[in-house]
Amino acid sequence: MEGVDTAAFAHTQRIMKSLAYAHANRARFVAELKEFVRFPSISARPGNAGDITRCAEWLAGHLQRIGMKHVAVIATRGHPLVYAEWLEAPGAPTVLIYGHYDVQPADPLDQWRSPPFEPVVRGEDLYGRGASDDKGQLFAHVKGLESCLRTSGRLAVNVKCLFEGEEEIGSPNFASFLAKNKSAFTADVVVVSDTAMLGQDRPAITYSMRGALSLELEVTGPKTDLHDGQFGGMVHNPLKGLCDIVAGLQTSGGQIAIPGFYKRVREVSEAERRYMADSGPTDRQLLGNAQTSRAWGEPGYSLYERTTIRPSLTISGITGGYQGPGPKTIIPARAVAKLNLRLVPDQDPMEIEGLVRRHIARVTPSTLRASIRSQLAAGPVLVDRANPFVKAAVTACYKVSGTPPTLVRSGGTNPAVTAFQEVLGLPAALIGFGLPDDRIHGPNEKFHLPNFHKGIATSIRFLHEVAAGPN
Amino acid sequence: MEGVDTAAFAHTQRIMKSLAYAHANRARFVAELKEFVRFPSISARPGNAGDITRCAEWLAGHLQRIGMKHVAVIATRGHPLVYAEWLEAPGAPTVLIYGHYDVQPADPLDQWRSPPFEPVVRGEDLYGRGASDDKGQLFAHVKGLESCLRTSGRLAVNVKCLFEGEEEIGSPNFASFLAKNKSAFTADVVVVSDTAMLGQDRPAITYSMRGALSLELEVTGPKTDLHDGQFGGMVHNPLKGLCDIVAGLQTSGGQIAIPGFYKRVREVSEAERRYMADSGPTDRQLLGNAQTSRAWGEPGYSLYERTTIRPSLTISGITGGYQGPGPKTIIPARAVAKLNLRLVPDQDPMEIEGLVRRHIARVTPSTLRASIRSQLAAGPVLVDRANPFVKAAVTACYKVSGTPPTLVRSGGTNPAVTAFQEVLGLPAALIGFGLPDDRIHGPNEKFHLPNFHKGIATSIRFLHEVAAGPN
Repeated sequence: MEGVDTAAFAHTQRIMKSLAYAHANRARFVAELKEFVRFPSISARPGNAGDITRCAEWLAGHLQRIGMKHVAVIATRGHPLVYAEWLEAPGAPTVLIYGHYDVQPADPLDQWRSPPFEPVVRGEDLYGRGASDDKGQLFAHVKGLESCLRTSGRLAVNVKCLFEGEEEIGSPNFASFLAKNKSAFTADVVVVSDTAMLGQDRPAITYSMRGALSLELEVTGPKTDLHDGQFGGMVHNPLKGLCDIVAGLQTSGGQIAIPGFYKRVREVSEAERRYMADSGPTDRQLLGNAQTSRAWGEPGYSLYERTTIRPSLTISGITGGYQGPGPKTIIPARAVAKLNLRLVPDQDPMEIEGLVRRHIARVTPSTLRASIRSQLAAGPVLVDRANPFVKAAVTACYKVSGTPPTLVRSGGTNPAVTAFQEVLGLPAALIGFGLPDDRIHGPNEKFHLPNFHKGIATSIRFLHEVAAGPN
Repeated sequence: MEGVDTAAFAHTQRIMKSLAYAHANRARFVAELKEFVRFPSISARPGNAGDITRCAEWLAGHLQRIGMKHVAVIATRGHPLVYAEWLEAPGAPTVLIYGHYDVQPADPLDQWRSPPFEPVVRGEDLYGRGASDDKGQLFAHVKGLESCLRTSGRLAVNVKCLFEGEEEIGSPNFASFLAKNKSAFTADVVVVSDTAMLGQDRPAITYSMRGALSLELEVTGPKTDLHDGQFGGMVHNPLKGLCDIVAGLQTSGGQIAIPGFYKRVREVSEAERRYMADSGPTDRQLLGNAQTSRAWGEPGYSLYERTTIRPSLTISGITGGYQGPGPKTIIPARAVAKLNLRLVPDQDPMEIEGLVRRHIARVTPSTLRASIRSQLAAGPVLVDRANPFVKAAVTACYKVSGTPPTLVRSGGTNPAVTAFQEVLGLPAALIGFGLPDDRIHGPNEKFHLPNFHKGIATSIRFLHEVAAGPN
């Protein structure tokens, strides 16, 4: 069996060399990540389209330089995708690495300690919009690939990278792009790092994500804004009507009051709920992450359960009437609310949207008009925990951290992961390098740099675990 | 009695000369009004403070030029007052003319057919912010004074002009200024043109106005905006909490649900309600003014009654969470609503504010915090319809229009009129030159120029009616 030993030795040698390279290049890797974060690649704002393109081109150039092949910036109906591959391991499995280089808007700007697109290291954290979500996590894989390619001249498996520029606006073109190009993206597994660990030194593999449905509700009344002295008391105020509708969507205790809403919500087994209680974050930890002392929501469920196995409804914005300083005595002509619903298996976004539309049509008084625009829809994701790729991810995390990772449910949504599941039937290995207090989507987002470096090591190990196959 | 006849003849001659002068100078008067409207004297916006000052100085210069005495721009803690007097009629009554040269903000700007501060005549209307409210109406009195002074070298009575620059922000410094300078503003009556006629050729004298209370309600929750995937379902959303509170302030049918709110609302006599029904605007007319076909509000009251003898509650603005295009999946940290209450005799704004504060403290859940800022408070105004100055105003209107004016209640508020009533005990002659469809406070505000010219004539006639005394 000498030959086998030699192969195993060579395999281990390659891993060690890659890890040593990554270690030796830590400072440069952070400097490069700062370059990446510097692009204000806000997908929601039309004015940032140029930044998005520049960011995609920068990323493509980077993939080219580290030795990936067939690098391309692929136009879509929206923002471009960045593609790269290395397919020189015939017979080995193919790993598809997904991430997104677009970011959330940075407002409220006045609450940032340092400008969101001028990344800066304070302590062990890199501050900047997108540092954690998802540029830092995506880049850990890129640096993992570089560490392998520069030391061994090869990768342990076949790799396809697909990096998106529209995740933060709900990946509106991603599922249709995948559906049209199925054969180009055949793979055995998709690996995604766009989730969080449970805490420092508490690695986590995510096996479920909530779905999402974002709707914009507009209520209109008089043709123009009216003087409320002249007309106050005789004209229905659309802003008040909007509040009435929104108030009625949910009890103050958190139960969503749309008829039929809970019909398809899958009850989670007692065994899994026990595992969640034993291994998952406690109420206290989650409150700490949210920087609040006051819990809220559906009775009968832990906070971890409320944010993962239960659906939720959030009003993320309301605009109506006068927004400036001081009073202005008007009855506004219109008002708009943004509604975000998070869905769980087996809720279907299209069906839920129908229920919401029907409910709102029913409760809107005849003195006002309501209309609904759909902005985002993605089904929930659930991965079999016994999947071999989940096991490979667990082993990789364990070897890097010395701690077995916890299998967790996430409350977030990744429509691209939904698409990989629904269009390509790919299982997902969701390996989070973020921390719960990274303040993604909020002011002062940061990425914990030790996690960046562990992420690179985990990416290197994961590819080798996949190559080695099930033990 | 030959002397008396001569005096009466001279008196009539003076009126005729003044009216002829006003008629001959119509075009110039309109051109000057356009100059006045051109100042963006928006009192609510700190950035327009310079425009306010320039407007006050322009108005003072104008009063000086037409022959008024002791013209002064008087500094206050806020925007300046413009004062002028002519007190050379010993023994005659003193008329205090009040108006305001500040205007409402002009947004939404995109709904204006022509820029709000570039006044333009289309048809018989002058379009521009403040054209009707209140620059055009104020200026009618100024041109009336000019017409008398330039033709007779004198006025029929003593006159004090006091023009304010903070009416549209609730006259925050006006009552205290009057209280500190009572002796300077002694008079027999205050005449104010800051109201509307019932329609073209339907002159109206207003004998009551609603009071006002403007409050800003802020609801806060988490320290910063939170990601709603991570935390949706376990943190109380202040924007949803705000909607719940606002929804609960009033039934969807218009009844205000704050305990004790209606306790002091004075029931109006059947006789007066009959007069209102006979002489006042119909539901159909009021709906036409509001450009809507859908009535709303308290059952048991006509639309005229709902907007005058009944209090109202209007949410004039809500700001919370993400305001931009596309979705943003946050739980916002705070949300703000602007509440405008209109009050009727004998409601007291201070008492009502206490009731609102108590109610909101009671309904705010322990998972959120609510705070209230007071922005405006003014009691309702009620003038005795048998007052001799009201009769003088009625006669003046009748002589100008050939139609007896209707005595009307207004749904609006003028805190300065409240202050004249409460601080100086002055009766008010509220002679409106506006039209119900002038779109004051909204886009495309206009002033009907025939009413400007009739307003000038009415002002000339009113001063002479006051000089002549009760018949």
